Amino acid sequence: MNSSWEIVVNGFDREKMNHTETILTIGNGYLCTRGSFAEKMEGQNVATFMHGVYDDIPVSFTELANIPNWTALQIEFGDESFRITEGKLHNMEQRLDMHAGVLSRTVDFETSSGKRAIIRFSRFASMAQRYLCAQKLEIQPINFSGTVKVVASFDGQADNLGLIHWNVCGQVVEANRAILHVKTRKTNVDVAMGMILGTDPEATIEQWNLEGHPSLCVVQDVSPERVFVLTKKVNIVTSRDSTDPVLSVNQMIGDCSGQSWEELLTSSVAVWERLWHDCDIEIDSEDDAQLIARFSIYHLLIAAPYSDEQVSIGAKTLSGYGYRGHVFWDTEIFMLPFFSFVLPDVASNLLSYRYHRLAGARKKAQLNGFDGAQFPWESAGTGEEVTPTWVPHFADPTKLVRIWTGDIQIHITADIAYALHMYWKVTGDDAFMAKRGLPIILEGAQFWVSRLEWNATESRYEIRDVIGPDENHDHVDNNTFTNFMAQWHIRLAISMAQWMAVYDHEGWKRLSARLNINEQLLTSWSEKADMIYIPQALPNGVIEQCSGFFEMEQVDLSHYAGRTRSIQEIFGIEEAAKIQVLKQADIVMLMYLFRELFPKDVIQANYDYYSPKTDHEFGSSLGPAMHSLVASWIGRKEEAYEHFMRAGQADLFDIRGNVGDGIHAASIGGIWQTIVFGFAGLIIDEIGWNVHPKLPGHWKRISFHFYYQGQRQHVEVTQEGGTDD
Amino acid sequence: MNSSWEIVVNGFDREKMNHTETILTIGNGYLCTRGSFAEKMEGQNVATFMHGVYDDIPVSFTELANIPNWTALQIEFGDESFRITEGKLHNMEQRLDMHAGVLSRTVDFETSSGKRAIIRFSRFASMAQRYLCAQKLEIQPINFSGTVKVVASFDGQADNLGLIHWNVCGQVVEANRAILHVKTRKTNVDVAMGMILGTDPEATIEQWNLEGHPSLCVVQDVSPERVFVLTKKVNIVTSRDSTDPVLSVNQMIGDCSGQSWEELLTSSVAVWERLWHDCDIEIDSEDDAQLIARFSIYHLLIAAPYSDEQVSIGAKTLSGYGYRGHVFWDTEIFMLPFFSFVLPDVASNLLSYRYHRLAGARKKAQLNGFDGAQFPWESAGTGEEVTPTWVPHFADPTKLVRIWTGDIQIHITADIAYALHMYWKVTGDDAFMAKRGLPIILEGAQFWVSRLEWNATESRYEIRDVIGPDENHDHVDNNTFTNFMAQWHIRLAISMAQWMAVYDHEGWKRLSARLNINEQLLTSWSEKADMIYIPQALPNGVIEQCSGFFEMEQVDLSHYAGRTRSIQEIFGIEEAAKIQVLKQADIVMLMYLFRELFPKDVIQANYDYYSPKTDHEFGSSLGPAMHSLVASWIGRKEEAYEHFMRAGQADLFDIRGNVGDGIHAASIGGIWQTIVFGFAGLIIDEIGWNVHPKLPGHWKRISFHFYYQGQRQHVEVTQEGGTDD
Repeated sequence: MNSSWEIVVNGFDREKMNHTETILTIGNGYLCTRGSFAEKMEGQNVATFMHGVYDDIPVSFTELANIPNWTALQIEFGDESFRITEGKLHNMEQRLDMHAGVLSRTVDFETSSGKRAIIRFSRFASMAQRYLCAQKLEIQPINFSGTVKVVASFDGQADNLGLIHWNVCGQVVEANRAILHVKTRKTNVDVAMGMILGTDPEATIEQWNLEGHPSLCVVQDVSPERVFVLTKKVNIVTSRDSTDPVLSVNQMIGDCSGQSWEELLTSSVAVWERLWHDCDIEIDSEDDAQLIARFSIYHLLIAAPYSDEQVSIGAKTLSGYGYRGHVFWDTEIFMLPFFSFVLPDVASNLLSYRYHRLAGARKKAQLNGFDGAQFPWESAGTGEEVTPTWVPHFADPTKLVRIWTGDIQIHITADIAYALHMYWKVTGDDAFMAKRGLPIILEGAQFWVSRLEWNATESRYEIRDVIGPDENHDHVDNNTFTNFMAQWHIRLAISMAQWMAVYDHEGWKRLSARLNINEQLLTSWSEKADMIYIPQALPNGVIEQCSGFFEMEQVDLSHYAGRTRSIQEIFGIEEAAKIQVLKQADIVMLMYLFRELFPKDVIQANYDYYSPKTDHEFGSSLGPAMHSLVASWIGRKEEAYEHFMRAGQADLFDIRGNVGDGIHAASIGGIWQTIVFGFAGLIIDEIGWNVHPKLPGHWKRISFHFYYQGQRQHVEVTQEGGTDD
Repeated sequence: MNSSWEIVVNGFDREKMNHTETILTIGNGYLCTRGSFAEKMEGQNVATFMHGVYDDIPVSFTELANIPNWTALQIEFGDESFRITEGKLHNMEQRLDMHAGVLSRTVDFETSSGKRAIIRFSRFASMAQRYLCAQKLEIQPINFSGTVKVVASFDGQADNLGLIHWNVCGQVVEANRAILHVKTRKTNVDVAMGMILGTDPEATIEQWNLEGHPSLCVVQDVSPERVFVLTKKVNIVTSRDSTDPVLSVNQMIGDCSGQSWEELLTSSVAVWERLWHDCDIEIDSEDDAQLIARFSIYHLLIAAPYSDEQVSIGAKTLSGYGYRGHVFWDTEIFMLPFFSFVLPDVASNLLSYRYHRLAGARKKAQLNGFDGAQFPWESAGTGEEVTPTWVPHFADPTKLVRIWTGDIQIHITADIAYALHMYWKVTGDDAFMAKRGLPIILEGAQFWVSRLEWNATESRYEIRDVIGPDENHDHVDNNTFTNFMAQWHIRLAISMAQWMAVYDHEGWKRLSARLNINEQLLTSWSEKADMIYIPQALPNGVIEQCSGFFEMEQVDLSHYAGRTRSIQEIFGIEEAAKIQVLKQADIVMLMYLFRELFPKDVIQANYDYYSPKTDHEFGSSLGPAMHSLVASWIGRKEEAYEHFMRAGQADLFDIRGNVGDGIHAASIGGIWQTIVFGFAGLIIDEIGWNVHPKLPGHWKRISFHFYYQGQRQHVEVTQEGGTDD
């Protein structure tokens, strides 16, 4: 076992506690549980989130409901509770084994009265049985004999940072088992969870059937010669999976009672091994790159919906409260390349999520007076827009700030089409494209065509009053990214229509009839797409981000070195919108997405213009990976590496200070892209794939696999094998 | 015991459940507990509120935090839980004895398997020992023998309608005792609560020391010959009362362990008897008047801060979540007359609350650019403005409505001065007036003088852009009520300054120096007050409510008979502001407050103009009592009675449908006034008091006591003794 497979946190630092909880999250794509302590600890944000288990809230409409904690263990040595902040903490190590998907924690602890013990916790969410989680507790007394009590309970009043989403429907406590049945208060999603304990035969179990808090209290005499060992197998099922979740859980508990903790773990590890066989990236280097790569892949793997096409991955995965589990373009543009290349079934599920939510997108288009399907900027259970319109101001929570992204950050619809197209190119999944891709692409194109605004003076179509990727500038006209994506999307729709007319003629007749699409219409779309205005370029090829951007004041960001806040926070929201400072890549991102379409010197000119104007440190976490990718593409190896490390350290070392809210999902998806598309230089084109490696100077080797058209491929690039063209 | 001392609710009606919880609230002026069931019941809003225990929240700034439930009892017959919705409910009666302050509930219940028992619950909050509450449970098996388990617990995750305000700091469970220590998350108010159980000697008690949920499980064999009896004595102390609440509670539990439930109840009932001796109103009539009177007084008595001058009574008393425990003018104008006349010590506490919050009022004035002290429209812990500026729209919660009352409903400052003046007139408490009244009155006057706006064209002072009592009309200029109150307040300040210069010359020198007040300034105040514009009157004396009111469209409310919503809801907020429909008395209220200053025919003309334009049914609950009072004053006995009954039935019978949110505190204060000042016609003038009775035709007698200048007075009026002048 190489240390690059493990995240190890030594000691206890209250300041870093919430960051640690996030990065040590475990999961199996069905649920994720933050790496909080099993015992209560003030200030920790204990949470288990399950895909699709949303409940309604004010202002932000909906959020993933933190389900009752399945890991809670209350430990008593006589009349002293185990709390690392009381008594003496001799040593503590938390260790996340990403290869096996197991989090363990070893504590060398002495109570106030001097009882010392080594306490070891382990937990995993089974990759082999999605409804199964398991936990083990071992207590090795060092210098005392006496009674240990351990209470294992479910808390029916689980809350989201103080807000309770649950009603308790029922519970059972008997022998060594406990079952809790809760239901979300507004959306009526049932969650049933059961536990079965394995104890020393000498231990006794008290049944504390307190309403809302079913608990089992294990009592055992211990000594240095007599270790306490408790295993807890937990099954969790929702009404999304079963018509009778309580019955299902009851059966599952029975089923797993005959299997040991080790057997269950072995099954899970076997699946993890298959996953890593497909997904791992090996990097030979002396830096943290290998750890960063595996950390990023690990967090994508625990959040991936392996067998659910009704959910997608939120902007903070399932690892924290940030963005309330809402789904953004982060999924399609940042995470989907990973899945399309290495886990195409998951990519198919994520894209199907959008397909199943076309009704919400149609509703949004209709409410706004447009045709077709306009996907929401933030999406959750229903597929309707769930972006909050007002949020508390970051500096003064008594003031409200109007959030416009849900109204006018419209490029998301084209981003989804882009992801669909990439998935299809890589996988060759024609059936999916015909059945689910085409409706999304065509109805999205209908939206774009109806959204175009004719400028009679200039004889061109414009798209006014939008927000592009760079959210520092809102209410802008003709954002190049948006206009280009709209144009590309409409043209894609036309070519895919032509493709489908050949691929599945009967299907096309039905689909085109349903959508009222015919040859003449497609011709008119093509003419309109040709007339979409793409903003002016400078003589050297630098393209204006949006109308009027070049006239805005320029600010030298080097004057703000050492700052600890974003430029938007320093200038204020309104002033920041008037200067040439970007929250994240905008034109640079466009150049990356369509890097084959732009001459390299144009890409370079735009990179050189916009990158120094971008708030890489405290702007969007979506930015660094994109800049790394473009820097690689134009041969700026050092900058590519610098941006890669910035992205890689964001979550691992919390350099933005907000990882307590959850993993930056777009960033980790972007990190995978920087390695595969950037440093290894993998390119898919019309005839297949090839690589143009741009390894950082001190890296020796990158090796990984992917699937192309259903066939497993291997890429291994070294310094010698690199080209620098 | 007369039935007019009791509120009795028979059977179980889920629709009326939340209303019943509110009206059956018990309390002792330190805390109140809603009349929810001891066992869990979905949909009930279990709550105990304590004066001054606020915690911060978004949008509405602060709210009273529901403390951990001290009444929770989980009852098990073998493996069957006691829930009235499972099994068979043969009979249920809830009975609030307002004379003794005891709520009891008797349930004849049969489990699904056929075990039948009579279960009787009783609870009270001790009027004799503010930190003490007590509960008793008796279970009489009818047709079975077996084991009964009863779990008594505190829940450290108590929530306010889903929002948790508490962190658990510690707990103890041993023998027959349990203690829980919690702290509000934002304001760091500690609450410690302890229970000690009294059980049958044959019963056993299991200690379930589950973190956050300390519980005692009582197990006993029962039979028709062997009744189960459990008593629970509870002590609750906050860090507002003790530097070590846990220690205090621990001592108190010890102290009361030697006293029986009956002894504790007897002490409490003795105090209740003294209270009723002073506060009761006897009404001889065949209608519900006697019950309405006692119900209103009871709810004032349980919410009255008897020994705390740092708190006031919120608009929903301590009986529900409505208005989040915020304090409005409801206290000073509607409730304070009751306290000033019958419990002057409480009145002094309530007025002292405002005195101690002058800093908040000064801050508000300063923030708005004014002098002196401007009291907040909604007040809570700090005395700063806590009116939410935006709230969800009643018809579409995704839309926000701007609430302007915190910005411009400014008459509150004069309302407080009015209450102070009345308190002083009735009690003759010169020391209080000099020490605490004068600063409030003078600094309030400083606010008013700085708030006046000079209209050079008309050569007069105006007060523009306000909301008067009638909140249907906002952003109005020269609201007569506000202008008149401002003028009266400034003149009161001048006369009280003159009074104090004589009463306490040295004190006056210090106070006037601190406030920079001298003779010349007072003269200028007098001149300014004289020049305040009081809007035009029609030839018959009808005064315009605000500038432009007479030009607004008139709407015949009789066309909207049978409606179930307010006129504001029917027309919408903006349209309702453009028509002559009032949410509540405005000019009519002014006439009542200064009834000695207006000729009776002017009062009558204004009543006849405005009353038919007022939404008596679904407008403000503050309105009916005021209309009853003015109707009495002008001899409209039937209308006076009709409005009295409308006010009286509002809470008792939930005719507005929102009593689940709490008692309408202004309405019950107004009801007391309708009887004492309206029907009995009590008047205080410069030389003393006298009565001008206007008894409803079918009432035989009203009898009550009050204190005038410290002396107990008795009023008894009958039909014969009435005058109709």
